[in-house]
Amino acid sequence: MNQNNLEALFKPENIAIVGASGNPAKAGYVILQNLIRKKYPKKIYPVNPGEKEILGLKSYARLSEIKDTVELVVLITPSKMIFSVMEDLDRRMQEKNDVKAIVCAAADYGETKTEEGIRRQEALISTATKYNIRVVGPNCIGVIDNESMVDTTFVETGVPEARFGPRGGVSFISQSGAIAASILMIGASQALPVRFNKFISIGNMADVDFIDLLEYLEHDDTTRVIGMYMEGYRDGRRLIDTMARIVKKKPIVVLKVGRSEKGASAANSHTGSLAGSDRVYDAAFRQYGITRVESIDELMDTLQAFDKLALPQSENLFVLSQAGGPGIFCTDAVSKYPFVKMPGISGETRKKLKESLPPMAVVCVPEGYADITASATVTNHAQSLQLLLEDDKVGGIILITVIPTFLPKKELAQALVNTYSNSRYKYEKPVYFVIMAGDYVKDIRETLERAGICTFDTPDRAVNAAKNMIKYHQYLEEQNSGGECL
Amino acid sequence: MNQNNLEALFKPENIAIVGASGNPAKAGYVILQNLIRKKYPKKIYPVNPGEKEILGLKSYARLSEIKDTVELVVLITPSKMIFSVMEDLDRRMQEKNDVKAIVCAAADYGETKTEEGIRRQEALISTATKYNIRVVGPNCIGVIDNESMVDTTFVETGVPEARFGPRGGVSFISQSGAIAASILMIGASQALPVRFNKFISIGNMADVDFIDLLEYLEHDDTTRVIGMYMEGYRDGRRLIDTMARIVKKKPIVVLKVGRSEKGASAANSHTGSLAGSDRVYDAAFRQYGITRVESIDELMDTLQAFDKLALPQSENLFVLSQAGGPGIFCTDAVSKYPFVKMPGISGETRKKLKESLPPMAVVCVPEGYADITASATVTNHAQSLQLLLEDDKVGGIILITVIPTFLPKKELAQALVNTYSNSRYKYEKPVYFVIMAGDYVKDIRETLERAGICTFDTPDRAVNAAKNMIKYHQYLEEQNSGGECL
Repeated sequence: MNQNNLEALFKPENIAIVGASGNPAKAGYVILQNLIRKKYPKKIYPVNPGEKEILGLKSYARLSEIKDTVELVVLITPSKMIFSVMEDLDRRMQEKNDVKAIVCAAADYGETKTEEGIRRQEALISTATKYNIRVVGPNCIGVIDNESMVDTTFVETGVPEARFGPRGGVSFISQSGAIAASILMIGASQALPVRFNKFISIGNMADVDFIDLLEYLEHDDTTRVIGMYMEGYRDGRRLIDTMARIVKKKPIVVLKVGRSEKGASAANSHTGSLAGSDRVYDAAFRQYGITRVESIDELMDTLQAFDKLALPQSENLFVLSQAGGPGIFCTDAVSKYPFVKMPGISGETRKKLKESLPPMAVVCVPEGYADITASATVTNHAQSLQLLLEDDKVGGIILITVIPTFLPKKELAQALVNTYSNSRYKYEKPVYFVIMAGDYVKDIRETLERAGICTFDTPDRAVNAAKNMIKYHQYLEEQNSGGECL
Repeated sequence: MNQNNLEALFKPENIAIVGASGNPAKAGYVILQNLIRKKYPKKIYPVNPGEKEILGLKSYARLSEIKDTVELVVLITPSKMIFSVMEDLDRRMQEKNDVKAIVCAAADYGETKTEEGIRRQEALISTATKYNIRVVGPNCIGVIDNESMVDTTFVETGVPEARFGPRGGVSFISQSGAIAASILMIGASQALPVRFNKFISIGNMADVDFIDLLEYLEHDDTTRVIGMYMEGYRDGRRLIDTMARIVKKKPIVVLKVGRSEKGASAANSHTGSLAGSDRVYDAAFRQYGITRVESIDELMDTLQAFDKLALPQSENLFVLSQAGGPGIFCTDAVSKYPFVKMPGISGETRKKLKESLPPMAVVCVPEGYADITASATVTNHAQSLQLLLEDDKVGGIILITVIPTFLPKKELAQALVNTYSNSRYKYEKPVYFVIMAGDYVKDIRETLERAGICTFDTPDRAVNAAKNMIKYHQYLEEQNSGGECL
């Protein structure tokens, strides 16, 4: 297959939306609206024989009538129209030969396992193959590229564009449209709404599949970490080989379902995934340094941490808490992972910490732990963080603060930014900031996140991200030392 | 000790705040403000010799100068003033003998393990004991009763009173002020902000402790479920006996830390909890049907579920999903708990489900699972829920819906309310509604919650609540059948 044409999914010269609609209750309306709202800078051509104009754009009766070049076609027509749409595409290609990619967002194709559905999918793919056009879907929510501002999805997050953070390095591939939509909406609900790098809902994988996209993202310099939701894949061996090669360059984080017998049976009904294959995948993920996560929260947090934080250079994680309860809870959570160590720090750091902190503070009991107490000032927060960053034994830090009503929130944020994200330590050691709790601290978390700090809701969530990063660091170390991994 | 005077913590005849302040940056200001905002209907008496009036209320120089009856005294003065405050209290008691309870929110007492701190705590307790006054704290964030509208905390949630839900049946006891504050703030951040029934941060437990409060809540009819955060307790045997008695009447949900060796060491630095005791607690919790949770999210969700939902009458849990991915993920999560069963339903229900649902729907593959697909209408949601509620094999349901852009949200909410919370099934079978995802669905979740429906963020969170309820049901069954529990 042609990897070049895959580029047109993300950086197309103009987009046509076949099935664009003037009815706000239709997907063909929301797709058009999303593209306009995102300010996709090239041309957008609605195609709908029943409309003259949609959302201020001239509407065309047929794809073949658009004079301009069109590289990406989004299909959101009723599925039974696929035959006439493909005939028209055929006409266009014979004349202009410009279309390079199709996103077929419509459902009711091969996934129905009905004769008609399979025939419709075959009609789509045979025309596409004839002209070397790449197809994403059918039965997907589409593709997003936040550099080129392509967005073919019909997911409304309700969050204004301006509220989103800067484009990150997380690219995501989802085998489920519902999980894809959920992840977009959960991402948009973070303290600083997450702007993915690239985002692909692959639906039936009638053409473009996991391996195509992984290979594309492998060579995509702005993608720093790859996230995946998967149920199964027809050629597991080749998928694992591909992932194993890529993971040496950038982390891959996978939420794979079908772990249980019942789950595998449900996955089989859904996407025909093989029962029993989960054990094989699980072993391969472990062997090849691929991060498998257990929940959507862990997926989101781990992706953000990999994207924003320096990879730890050791397994030593220090727990620095402003409150006893959350600190102990965090220590329990860290202790679940024997490969994570809470380090003993130098006598000098220990002494300086004790001198700088309130008398009630607990320093290094147990090792790798400090409770700076609720009476800790902004300076206490910043100084203890600084001292620990300077200690060679510390590979990373979980910093927990339950913002008390009386601690000046803005000053605290500024002090943490100065100490960490405006310093060289940002590039040397990961610090996982747990800012408790709830919506009350969303504003301070947004401030920190805009300054490049990675924040978490609760200590256990930070621990999940931290242990995943440490495990990946250890995998890379083993690779580099030529040793065998577990 | 006098259990009657404990009543004055929650239903006091007037409150004095010693250390009330006109400075918004002080705890003595926020406590007063919280009481005023909550519209505590009885008298509030600020005590501060430096002020004439605070927040529109006359301020008194000394506690002994207040003519009116005062049953509850909140202490938020600097700790070194405790001796003169106690002298003044002594004067008042000799004259009026009215004070029944003290909440000492101030810190810098016994928890410092310094001679001065211990002396201050002794001064507080010896005066209180002399007059049979009950003391909560020191070093706590205080007490809330949302019936009497007592609120002695200095936690600002930033959420207007009107946004909170109706007073629930969850009462909570926390050994950590930071965890207590976090839980209040996380509760306030839910789709429908949580209004606890009673809420107590117990701090140093110099007098009122876990057992006093558990026994109070045992007999408190509006408390339907008790939540606890704990690190340790000096008389574990008696605590377990108390909990084991109460749990037969109402569920107890505990987040206990110190599970790991390191965590236990940190807990020991914090509240002097014994290392190694966690194993004993853990075994006792299992033996006596006490629900131990692993995270703050699981704590919040389980408390809400126990409060709002009917206790399941069997271990049979049906997973009804509108989307394959989240449904499979949920099935995996259920499968982690062998004591939860996904039931086979009757042939009749099966047939009716198939007839009513879109052709793509997956019914009972695997058993106990249905995927009604993204093309499911509002009617499909309501009908399938109704059919499953009617089936005798179904003990409870997890209903997952990823609200697509095109499903009318309000109609869906109304249909779910009509089918479930306005029906007898609300009192017979728990339904855990997973409404995905993020802030985008907060409005529909609020609508459902106001109608008495319990909603969840993600499938795994619903599963945690559901399995905890099933385990408790099984414990009660074993008790009633006279059998031995595990």
